[in-house]
Amino acid sequence: MSKEDVGITVSKKDDFSEWYTQVVLKAKLADYAPVKGLIVLRPDGYSIWESLKNTFDKKFAKNGIRNGFLPVLIPESLLGKEQKHFAGFNPEVFWVTHSGTNEIGDRLALRPTSETLAYTLYSKWIQSWRDLPLKINFWNTALRAEIKATKPFLRTSEFLWQEGHTVHTTQEEAEKEVMKILEIYKNTVEEELAIPVTTGKKSEKEKFVGAVYTTTMESIMPDGKALQMGTSHFLGQNFSKPFEVKFADKDNVEHFAWQTSWGVSWRLIGAMIMAHGDDQGLVLPPKVAPTQVVIVPIYKNDEGRDKVIPKVKEIQEKLESKDIRIQVDDRQGLSPGYKFNDWEMKGVPMRIEIGPKDIEKQSVVIAKRYNREKLNLEFNNIEKIITILDEIQKNMLENAQIQSKENTKNILDYAEFKSKIEDGGFFNAPWCGKLECEEKIKEETGADIRVIPFGSENTDSKCIYCGEQSQSVPVFARGY
Amino acid sequence: MSKEDVGITVSKKDDFSEWYTQVVLKAKLADYAPVKGLIVLRPDGYSIWESLKNTFDKKFAKNGIRNGFLPVLIPESLLGKEQKHFAGFNPEVFWVTHSGTNEIGDRLALRPTSETLAYTLYSKWIQSWRDLPLKINFWNTALRAEIKATKPFLRTSEFLWQEGHTVHTTQEEAEKEVMKILEIYKNTVEEELAIPVTTGKKSEKEKFVGAVYTTTMESIMPDGKALQMGTSHFLGQNFSKPFEVKFADKDNVEHFAWQTSWGVSWRLIGAMIMAHGDDQGLVLPPKVAPTQVVIVPIYKNDEGRDKVIPKVKEIQEKLESKDIRIQVDDRQGLSPGYKFNDWEMKGVPMRIEIGPKDIEKQSVVIAKRYNREKLNLEFNNIEKIITILDEIQKNMLENAQIQSKENTKNILDYAEFKSKIEDGGFFNAPWCGKLECEEKIKEETGADIRVIPFGSENTDSKCIYCGEQSQSVPVFARGY
Ligand SMILES: [Zn+2]
Ligand SMILES: [Zn+2]
Repeated sequence: MSKEDVGITVSKKDDFSEWYTQVVLKAKLADYAPVKGLIVLRPDGYSIWESLKNTFDKKFAKNGIRNGFLPVLIPESLLGKEQKHFAGFNPEVFWVTHSGTNEIGDRLALRPTSETLAYTLYSKWIQSWRDLPLKINFWNTALRAEIKATKPFLRTSEFLWQEGHTVHTTQEEAEKEVMKILEIYKNTVEEELAIPVTTGKKSEKEKFVGAVYTTTMESIMPDGKALQMGTSHFLGQNFSKPFEVKFADKDNVEHFAWQTSWGVSWRLIGAMIMAHGDDQGLVLPPKVAPTQVVIVPIYKNDEGRDKVIPKVKEIQEKLESKDIRIQVDDRQGLSPGYKFNDWEMKGVPMRIEIGPKDIEKQSVVIAKRYNREKLNLEFNNIEKIITILDEIQKNMLENAQIQSKENTKNILDYAEFKSKIEDGGFFNAPWCGKLECEEKIKEETGADIRVIPFGSENTDSKCIYCGEQSQSVPVFARGY
Repeated sequence: MSKEDVGITVSKKDDFSEWYTQVVLKAKLADYAPVKGLIVLRPDGYSIWESLKNTFDKKFAKNGIRNGFLPVLIPESLLGKEQKHFAGFNPEVFWVTHSGTNEIGDRLALRPTSETLAYTLYSKWIQSWRDLPLKINFWNTALRAEIKATKPFLRTSEFLWQEGHTVHTTQEEAEKEVMKILEIYKNTVEEELAIPVTTGKKSEKEKFVGAVYTTTMESIMPDGKALQMGTSHFLGQNFSKPFEVKFADKDNVEHFAWQTSWGVSWRLIGAMIMAHGDDQGLVLPPKVAPTQVVIVPIYKNDEGRDKVIPKVKEIQEKLESKDIRIQVDDRQGLSPGYKFNDWEMKGVPMRIEIGPKDIEKQSVVIAKRYNREKLNLEFNNIEKIITILDEIQKNMLENAQIQSKENTKNILDYAEFKSKIEDGGFFNAPWCGKLECEEKIKEETGADIRVIPFGSENTDSKCIYCGEQSQSVPVFARGY
């Protein structure tokens, strides 16, 4: 295999889109399935999802949320019960029309999202205030037919996600839940994936179909485009009324309940690849890396091997006992250089090199993946690796924060906006709140309102488009 | 609500099928979805699945198996590539024919099982011996249209399961893997769910379509019927040839690989409900119980409450620190009797009652769910609860083993077989190995060969049907 076949053949800077696809495939995170629009996760890719899942599960559980299971098939009649919601999803729904050779009367949709199904059940399960709050999360997939080119983790017709659905006795409690979830999303993405996010509300135009309002977290990707990282919706009573999710209160009077729904998907993995990867391949934050440390023993003959391997095993065992996820690459017939490239492609956060000379010097060479820095570490200090991994995690977030800040501009003049939008990035620009201005800006620049950051409301600037009194300073950007 | 609404209204002995359904629904494990054949898991039901999943994941990981993700849609052309396999599943396949309003050319099947999809990918991923063994497991659902009445966990058109798919360089290694997995299945079901199983091979007639042979584990349910608890298949090269799963060996010669596939489903939860439940509801083995211990404080007034609650909290904290999953039921306005029934219905393995008198005596009352035994435990000995839970787990398995033994008969005479089959149970009966006898027995008694136990081969008895030299002593039984 020539070097071109193994390594990434384009640079991240020159051809971001092709670079991304090559990283996904060559780091063996995912592959294309035989059906257009669908992908498969290989173990290294799925392991990152499992790591996120575990983190979310712990935080959800602390917040009183438990997991359940919903089937993938929803009857057409049920999906159509909340009309606006249905209209929003209808064009992308996969329809099951036959089982074996039998035609199915009421066609079955593959779940694009589960509000209608979950709330049909909730209306049966909830009778009194004693049954509330009801908070259930579902780890499943959603299916929405994509007609544009497949992009692993970012644009696929089936995607892994979690969808949470909670029910409350009061509006206040439900709205608190919306914010609590958004907070969990934000700190998980920042702490685990080392990606900074901006949180706030979606505009009316961009909110979830059926929600009263949608809160969101958005990130800037290195190519200047915005990516929606997760959303948490306040549904009010928009679903509880058609689905009759009602409860008898302590005074025995019946009320419609207040609801929320929220989700993040494997798109977060796509964001992580884009945010941190480089021309050598994937770069993984230590917290979610399936392998955090790889040891490459280096020797030329059996004598060298006998010197090196016992120490390698000792270090491996010591770090394993500290719950470091470690691998030793003692594959025969492959050069150290080949192995270095291989593990760099896979994004393993730290490499340890040990040869006979290192044994003499009683130290190892450590190479950090994210900045390619090398340093020597004495055998006696080997446990410092735990601290170094923590530092890597922290530094990766700081670097991403700096990049993010550089790509964010406060802007008051529409002509300047139009001239700079081509370069990408987040544009904080005052807005009057009218749909008309939002649509005109989209039409003329390709930029949407990604998020109206919390605290940016009620400004006394002028709308960047119409010059009227502004209501907020949303983030405008072109998106994925 | 009247007592009838809350409790189980039939006895396990008199109407097993109705009893089962009531336990599932009233213990709030699952509910029916709006589409016939589909069910939903509520948090208590899903939690049992999560517990099994965690146990299997740990054992799989130790065995070098990692998890991946496969999409639910498989093109018809691909599913048909291994003809016998396809014919086996074809009548139960759900077909997707449209996305939005567009008709799809090559219809898409909802995965009935993933061999064809996985092996299409494996053939791309595997080039050399270095890539083997490849061992990936997928936690997903399978979809097979059920026309018979829905039975939660036992007969549904979509079910949660895991399917593992491994690839090896040699036949020997693959066959070892088949047995290793069956062993993991057996010890997990026995140790976690307290259900004894009989392991062995399926007959040619009953094996997985496409396998060289199928190994299985089977259990007797209290109604005398057999339940298949899990299967592990040796696929030989039956799939590697049509799907071109090939590898270059060290000598650079290409070979077809040797494969296995294996799975268990949420049917295991159904088996657990049947094996242990009683007329008061569900009975959970402690290891998989979402709540292992419930404390019911008993008091009549605020004075009593002030006496009891501090001790309740102390016990709760002590046991939580030992990783016991514990809940306190201090709901107001519900009688202790109501609460007892409620937690018994849910199958919580142990209840602790504490009232003011117990405080005086410095002890609590403990009630075991599985045998309804009560005992006193002094405050000082409260950590003994951990041991008692272990004993409950052990005793539940022993009881199930005794039941199983009672329901197993060695039989040499066909007339006796026919007269006793109506009572149910496992019948160990010698068999010549011919399909004809197997089919005749099925026709005349309704009993299948469930499993040919390991070690029962090469007997010198006479076939119970034709009187010829027997080859083995299979377990015959009527099944689910
Ligand atoms: Zn305006
Ligand atoms: Zn015979």
